[in-house]
Amino acid sequence: MEELKPSPANSSPLTPIGFLDRAATVYGNCPSVVYNDKTYTWSETHRRCLRVASSIASMGIERGQVVSIVAPNIPAMYELYFAIPMAGMVLNSINYRLDARTVSVILRHCESKLVFVDHEYSSLLLQSLSLFPQDSPRPKLVLITDNQTSSAVGFLSNYEALVEKGDQKFNWVRPKTEWDPMVLNYTSGTTSSPKGVVHCHRGMFIIAVDSLIDWSVPKQPIYLWTLPMFHANGWSFTWGMAAVGGTNICLRKFDAGIIYAAVRRHGVTHMCGAPVVLNMLSNPPDGKGLEHPVEILTAGAPPPAAVLGRAESMGFRVSHGYGLTETGGMVVSCVWKREWDKYPATERARLKARQGVRTVATTEIDVVDMETGAAVKRDGTSLGEVVLRGGSLMLGYLKDPAATAKAMREDGWFYTGDVAVIHPDGYLEIKDRSKDIIITGGENVSSVEVESVLYSHPAVDEAAVVARPDEYWGETPCVFLSLKLGIGRNPTEKEIIEYCKDKMPHYMAPKTVVFKDELPKTSTGKIKKYVLREIAKSMGSLTKSRM
Amino acid sequence: MEELKPSPANSSPLTPIGFLDRAATVYGNCPSVVYNDKTYTWSETHRRCLRVASSIASMGIERGQVVSIVAPNIPAMYELYFAIPMAGMVLNSINYRLDARTVSVILRHCESKLVFVDHEYSSLLLQSLSLFPQDSPRPKLVLITDNQTSSAVGFLSNYEALVEKGDQKFNWVRPKTEWDPMVLNYTSGTTSSPKGVVHCHRGMFIIAVDSLIDWSVPKQPIYLWTLPMFHANGWSFTWGMAAVGGTNICLRKFDAGIIYAAVRRHGVTHMCGAPVVLNMLSNPPDGKGLEHPVEILTAGAPPPAAVLGRAESMGFRVSHGYGLTETGGMVVSCVWKREWDKYPATERARLKARQGVRTVATTEIDVVDMETGAAVKRDGTSLGEVVLRGGSLMLGYLKDPAATAKAMREDGWFYTGDVAVIHPDGYLEIKDRSKDIIITGGENVSSVEVESVLYSHPAVDEAAVVARPDEYWGETPCVFLSLKLGIGRNPTEKEIIEYCKDKMPHYMAPKTVVFKDELPKTSTGKIKKYVLREIAKSMGSLTKSRM
Repeated sequence: MEELKPSPANSSPLTPIGFLDRAATVYGNCPSVVYNDKTYTWSETHRRCLRVASSIASMGIERGQVVSIVAPNIPAMYELYFAIPMAGMVLNSINYRLDARTVSVILRHCESKLVFVDHEYSSLLLQSLSLFPQDSPRPKLVLITDNQTSSAVGFLSNYEALVEKGDQKFNWVRPKTEWDPMVLNYTSGTTSSPKGVVHCHRGMFIIAVDSLIDWSVPKQPIYLWTLPMFHANGWSFTWGMAAVGGTNICLRKFDAGIIYAAVRRHGVTHMCGAPVVLNMLSNPPDGKGLEHPVEILTAGAPPPAAVLGRAESMGFRVSHGYGLTETGGMVVSCVWKREWDKYPATERARLKARQGVRTVATTEIDVVDMETGAAVKRDGTSLGEVVLRGGSLMLGYLKDPAATAKAMREDGWFYTGDVAVIHPDGYLEIKDRSKDIIITGGENVSSVEVESVLYSHPAVDEAAVVARPDEYWGETPCVFLSLKLGIGRNPTEKEIIEYCKDKMPHYMAPKTVVFKDELPKTSTGKIKKYVLREIAKSMGSLTKSRM
Repeated sequence: MEELKPSPANSSPLTPIGFLDRAATVYGNCPSVVYNDKTYTWSETHRRCLRVASSIASMGIERGQVVSIVAPNIPAMYELYFAIPMAGMVLNSINYRLDARTVSVILRHCESKLVFVDHEYSSLLLQSLSLFPQDSPRPKLVLITDNQTSSAVGFLSNYEALVEKGDQKFNWVRPKTEWDPMVLNYTSGTTSSPKGVVHCHRGMFIIAVDSLIDWSVPKQPIYLWTLPMFHANGWSFTWGMAAVGGTNICLRKFDAGIIYAAVRRHGVTHMCGAPVVLNMLSNPPDGKGLEHPVEILTAGAPPPAAVLGRAESMGFRVSHGYGLTETGGMVVSCVWKREWDKYPATERARLKARQGVRTVATTEIDVVDMETGAAVKRDGTSLGEVVLRGGSLMLGYLKDPAATAKAMREDGWFYTGDVAVIHPDGYLEIKDRSKDIIITGGENVSSVEVESVLYSHPAVDEAAVVARPDEYWGETPCVFLSLKLGIGRNPTEKEIIEYCKDKMPHYMAPKTVVFKDELPKTSTGKIKKYVLREIAKSMGSLTKSRM
């Protein structure tokens, strides 16, 4: 039996790119992408992608080099998720909410050869290029405009012109091996140092099929793009929607009103979003919930139980999971058990706020003691770092072997930097980023746990807890709050602290409360804790040293 | 970017075996396997598999050697689909309808070290061992009995005793690479020479997730085992059910009455079966259809449109696909388009009888001219051989490098030996096994096409068309028919031929009709055409040579 080896017929590289020509055959006449009043079919999307891919391939860029995009969730963005890899290039979708300096750093770091830029962000791009050193090679620029083929000064071409002049009979460039790099995602994260996460074709195939199974996505869903595609490639549903022949409802911008209107107009069945989207949806503009149930998948920061509960009462079926840019999408999900249906709403929300269990394509996951490296007890209280292994994990960080080696260790585990407990039923619950743990008087305090209590306060809109350095306690919990509008009298600092003390061990309760109109956020809706941490640090010690 | 390579964390071998411990975590209290009045939970199934695996591992069998099973769809059979690979051995599930001689040939060919035998087939096994040459090493035998731990003469142990004495803390043996052999399936097929098809862990992972997506299997389906597990590993749903936490309803034997009763008793939602099962279901014993819709997936021989139509009228939602033992399961499926819903029933049945399009994990498929090797026109009439490539394809045939090289060619395609056309919409339709094509007067006649017409005749129960050698025409179509009972007057040969001539080109119409009480079938319900072909051959030429 040892003589039976992989051969060309059974070892063709796994890649999600092949989902597209299949969709064109199966769902050729069915809607693929809808944007304002324009609807494309899967045949059209397929042809447009081939045309753009052929245009890119004819620009003299070498195979395996980086092509970037800066665009919102518009049809061109969706198409480029196929067209760039189909041209043999590495897809690099950049967060358009970044500043020119960061965009400039990213473009130089990955040596991007070509950037597709939506017209709204053309000045951001031109500004970022102006920050390049004199002698540094610059990428070519292609402008994306809604329904126009004209270009502008500084731009090589217009996107629609590339579609027009492209060849729809182009033979797309299949990867040589399934380990060939396919996408490059810079982590926006909650820190100020973005890293370039490189994923291969195999990894993106695995996460795409894994996520379809995990979320039980049926054929031909109507999918609303409320998650930025640049955010971990839309958790792989960019490609996944082609596998199931879904309809991609594109949105340039959105708020609660736009989302509810799109859901009604298009009969949306599925959507994803950061917890901030869930929060938005729990306050519908007309006070009315949904007319038909909508599946919503959320991940990222753990959503507070109260937010989950409110979204469900509006008619959303909330699924919840966990993943990192480095894992390519969700690798842990809170699989719902039928027996939980009978529990009261608060208990259901508590269960659903947990991140859950590994997905079927994730090989192993564990929570290990941060000192000893041993697996923690499955008691729901022992904190440790989440480690995992599986086929959707990144190849590594671009040009950063030290960071790669620190994350992908020789013991065969990927170290996430996230802190969690495992409950007796085997479900994992993230308690914090490791650096977000507050150590006060030698006790570990999970900022997420304190935030979860704060979110249950009727006046609280958003809450973030960070460490405030303290001469006596080492650190104390310091909370930054924004309050809801029109709630009558605002609570005082003392009332907030008392509210917490009623609901948690006193050492965990915040010792400082800072009220803000709005909390600083990253482009993906995560609260920028490092900014708040700086503020807390600048406040100095609350307690005078008694030494 | 070239320096980023696979590492232990992201290249852990793909395998479906890991679905089981995940199911024990997620669905621990939920039913896994139901058989008569016994219900196991996923925790129990997990523990039992670990115990059996530990028992197998302690028997002195080397890693990678073959362990066989001869059993119907009972709980032990389901457990062994995990337990044997968990012990590091290669799983070989043998068709229990084979004769002792063939079983003996298989056991010697794969050098099986251990055979698990259901009590109903113990004499078959003992007889097959008696056919071993004197000096040939024999496998050990383990007897499977319903709810007993006693053994019998000639048997090493009883299955339940292996469960009892096993260690539920056993560390199951993970594959060293994902290309490690995992299962060995002998093709029963329609020919008389079985070949040993070897599949690896990666292939079985890919087909298992692919089939779940293709059939849109939701979480926790109630799955009725009307497809023998030994038949291409139950088209991978043995492992797939663990991935979605399904309930496996086991059946030792079945007929239409047993199936309808099980569907009602357990609330079955999903089942698979060869076309012969579909045929069975279209005649319910009490004349009543289903009370709730049931998804049924069929593959193998192309089911005649009339059979598909009848099953649907009973309340089954029929999905249809195509695969071979060599492809590990279904690699082509007739994905249904919403726009087809509006067509009349006969047109819908015609569309659904086509095999369809490649599944998402199948890389490429084509139909090529059998002379030139060029892709045929997509016109619905040009016949060619189906070729494909993809991750679920076998490693090759055991100890048969010539057959392996003939099927897995250097051009990177696997040659199926099946003849098909591609319709203008890209859907593939199998017309025949290449050897089943009848060449009459230089015209190719698809036996399946003629059979399809015959099945639309109200008196026909089963039909098979083969070539009868002919001095003048080369070959002529010869039909073997069984008729329905209680239909009044039976049609004559002439009436059958006229019926066909009304509905097809005259050269395609059968020239000979042979009536039989029952057609000879393989254990998986396929009609044994090679037997009929021998009969047709022995009949001699119909037309005298005019030369």
